[in-house]
Amino acid sequence: MRAELIMVGTELLLGEIVDTNATFLARKLADLGIDVFYKSTVGDNLERVSRVLLEALGRSDIVIMSGGLGPTDDDLTREIVSEVTKRELVVDEGVLKEIEDWFAERYGHSAMPAHNRKQALFPSGSQIIPNPVGTAPGFCLDNDGKMVIALPGVSRELKAMFTASVAPILAKRSSGQVLVTRNLHFAGIGESSLEEILADLLSEQANPTLALYASGGTVRVRMAVKADTETAGLELIEPVEREIRSRTGDYLYGIDGETLEQVVAERLLDKRLTLALAESCTGGLVGHRLTNVPGSSAFLNRGYVVYSNQAKMEDLGVKQATLDSFGAVSEQTAREMAEGARLRAKTDMGLAITGIAGPGGGTAVKPVGLVYMSLASSGDTIVQRHLWKGTREQIKNRAALMALRLLWQATK
Amino acid sequence: MRAELIMVGTELLLGEIVDTNATFLARKLADLGIDVFYKSTVGDNLERVSRVLLEALGRSDIVIMSGGLGPTDDDLTREIVSEVTKRELVVDEGVLKEIEDWFAERYGHSAMPAHNRKQALFPSGSQIIPNPVGTAPGFCLDNDGKMVIALPGVSRELKAMFTASVAPILAKRSSGQVLVTRNLHFAGIGESSLEEILADLLSEQANPTLALYASGGTVRVRMAVKADTETAGLELIEPVEREIRSRTGDYLYGIDGETLEQVVAERLLDKRLTLALAESCTGGLVGHRLTNVPGSSAFLNRGYVVYSNQAKMEDLGVKQATLDSFGAVSEQTAREMAEGARLRAKTDMGLAITGIAGPGGGTAVKPVGLVYMSLASSGDTIVQRHLWKGTREQIKNRAALMALRLLWQATK
Repeated sequence: MRAELIMVGTELLLGEIVDTNATFLARKLADLGIDVFYKSTVGDNLERVSRVLLEALGRSDIVIMSGGLGPTDDDLTREIVSEVTKRELVVDEGVLKEIEDWFAERYGHSAMPAHNRKQALFPSGSQIIPNPVGTAPGFCLDNDGKMVIALPGVSRELKAMFTASVAPILAKRSSGQVLVTRNLHFAGIGESSLEEILADLLSEQANPTLALYASGGTVRVRMAVKADTETAGLELIEPVEREIRSRTGDYLYGIDGETLEQVVAERLLDKRLTLALAESCTGGLVGHRLTNVPGSSAFLNRGYVVYSNQAKMEDLGVKQATLDSFGAVSEQTAREMAEGARLRAKTDMGLAITGIAGPGGGTAVKPVGLVYMSLASSGDTIVQRHLWKGTREQIKNRAALMALRLLWQATK
Repeated sequence: MRAELIMVGTELLLGEIVDTNATFLARKLADLGIDVFYKSTVGDNLERVSRVLLEALGRSDIVIMSGGLGPTDDDLTREIVSEVTKRELVVDEGVLKEIEDWFAERYGHSAMPAHNRKQALFPSGSQIIPNPVGTAPGFCLDNDGKMVIALPGVSRELKAMFTASVAPILAKRSSGQVLVTRNLHFAGIGESSLEEILADLLSEQANPTLALYASGGTVRVRMAVKADTETAGLELIEPVEREIRSRTGDYLYGIDGETLEQVVAERLLDKRLTLALAESCTGGLVGHRLTNVPGSSAFLNRGYVVYSNQAKMEDLGVKQATLDSFGAVSEQTAREMAEGARLRAKTDMGLAITGIAGPGGGTAVKPVGLVYMSLASSGDTIVQRHLWKGTREQIKNRAALMALRLLWQATK
C-alpha cells in the first residue's frame, strides 16, 4: 500500500520553519510498513493544492494532508478535498457544539468567532478525526477506494491525532507487515571505500535492502526489511549484519541510535578507566561531546582547553624547549600535552589534540587542517597525524570525531 | 520567476532525517525574491524522479534538485536529467582529474574507486558547479528556457555550492524585485514577552512584515520587505528597526548572521580583554562556541573543564571547605571557580559555570536544571542563579548561552 504526503502552507515554502510534521508522518508510516513514494509541499493556494491532490490520488492509495484546517480565509484544505472528490461540505453539529463549548469554556458564553464555524464543515461521508489538543478536527474520507486524510498543521495536534486515531485506521487497512530497520555506524572509513568492501552485499540487496549515508566524517549503513513481525524482520537482518561486521570490524562503532561518545563512555565505564583531556584546536568540543553522555562524570576527571602556549606549559608541563623547537602543533607537543594531562589529573588516560583549525595561522610546512592527536596511558603514548580540508568548524568537528575514535580503538 | 524544489532520496521519505536542505534552499530563494510554489520529495527511483522532474519543468522556470549525485548505483540524478532533457551524458576531463587528485591526495596514487568516475559525467551543455568541500560537483543546465540545477544532498556541500555559485546565477537571471530582510537576535527574553513589547508593530505589519521565531533560548525577529533595490528595502526597514531597538535594547545582541559568540569576541577584542573559562556542567561547550570564532586565541587564554571536585580544587583553588559546606553547585563554588580561573591564567576575566545537567544528580533542594554562573573581573565578581527545565543537552545549551550573554552584558 502506498501513501503520499501533501504538506500545505506557504510558510513551508519560505524556509522559515523546518517541516518536522513530514518527518514525523514519514517515520510513522514506515513503522506501519506503508510505503511513501512522494511528498509534496505546496502553498495556501486553491488551484495549486487541488492540482497536487488530484495527481496524488492518481498514483497513491492513501493521501495524508497536513495544514489548511484553521479558521482563516487562507485555510483551504476542506474546500479543496470537497471539490476534488466532488463531495459537498456539510456541517457536523456535534463538532460545532464542541468548538462552541471550547471557546465558551475559555472566553465565556457565545465567545466563538464566526470564522471558527468553518471548522465544523466536512466533505460528506467523512469520518471525523477528533483533535484532543486544539479546535480543528481532521477527517478521513474513503473515495473510490482511495483514502484522503486531512490533519491540522500544528505539530502537537497533528502528532496527537495521528497517534490516537490515524495510526489505528491505517494499521487496519495496511497489509499488516512492519518495516524493521537496523543502522550500523562507521568512523575512519570513507563512503566509497565502505561501498567497495560491501559491494556484493549492496548489489544482491533484496531482503534486507542496504543503503549508505555519509555525514560529518561518519558513514551509516542502513538495513531495512519488511516482515510480518519485528522478530521475523530481525532474523532476516541478523546474518547480513554478521557478514558486514566480519568485514568491517575495525570501523564499526555503534548501532541504531548510538553515538561515538556513548560507546566510548560505555567502554571507559566497563573497564573503570578515567580520562583527562587536553584540547587546543578543538577548544572544548571533545569535552562537550563526552559530557553529553549522562554519567560521564564517572570517567571524565577534567579537561584543559590550552589555547595559549602559556597554558600548555603551566597547566600541562609542556616544555618551553619543545614549543620552541617543534611548535605548538607538533607530534612532540601533542605527546607532552597528553602525558601532562594524565599526570596532572592522575587518570588512567590522557587525550590531547593540537592543530590549526584556520582560516588563519597556516604555513607551507604546517597548513590549515594539520592536526596531531595523542593518547597517553600507563603502557605507552600513541600519536597520530591528520590533515583535513574544510572550514574551521569542519576541522574542529573532524578532529573531535577522530579523537573519540582513537579513544574507542584504544579501549577495545 | 518561479522556482521549484525536488529533493531526491529514499531516506527523506522514511523520516530518518529532517530535510534541512529544503529549508535552506527555500529561504535563500525567498531572499533572492524568487517564488517557490512547489517542493517535491521523491525516493531514489528512476521512473518516479523522472515523472516529478517532467511535471516541474512544465510549471516552473527553475528546477533545483538536491541529492542523487553520489558515486553509487542508486544515485540517479545525472541520468534522469540527461533522459528528461534529452542531453547525452559526457565526461568532463577537468572534473575527472580533480576527483582523481582529491583521492590521490588523501589515500595515495590511483586511489580513486572506479565508481567515482561517474561523478565526472554531466548532461551535455551543462555549466559545472564546483564543489569546494567534496567530490561531487553539481551542474546547471539551460533547457528550452527552463533551468535545471542539480546539487548534492550532503548539506554542507549543497550550502557551500549554492552560496558560491548558484545564488549569483539566479540573481543574474531573476529580473524583478528583491526580498530584503533583516534579522534581530535576542537573548534573555521569551518569545511571548517580546511579542507583547512589539504587539502594535506586529499587528500593523505590512511593509516590512515582521515575524518572531524562538529556538534554543534565543528569539529572532525577522523583518522582510520586497523592493526594487536592496537600498530601497533597507530604507523601509530602518525606521522599524530603530523603533524595535529603542524598546528592547538590553536583549538585542546581534543582527542577521551574527552569533552571540561573535559579538562577545568582538567586544573582548575591542577592549583588549583576556578571558579564562572554568566549566563544570557545560563540559567545554562555552570553550567550543568561543573557539568557533576565528582569531579567538587573541582573547581566550585557556579553559578548565573541572568535572571533578578534585579538579576544581587542584586547578582553580576552590576550597575544600567551600565544597563541603555549600556543594559543587553553589553560588560560593561558582565564585571561587571564576576567581580561581582568572587568577591562575592571569587574565582580565574569569567565567565559571557549575550546575546539574541531569538526568541524574538532582535533589529536592538542588534539582536538575539548577545552574550557577559567575564572572570575575578586576572590579568585582558577579554570580547568577538559574533554573531551567529540559533534557541534559538543552540545559547545557541554555547554560552556555546565558554564560555568553553574561559576558556580553559585562563587556558593554
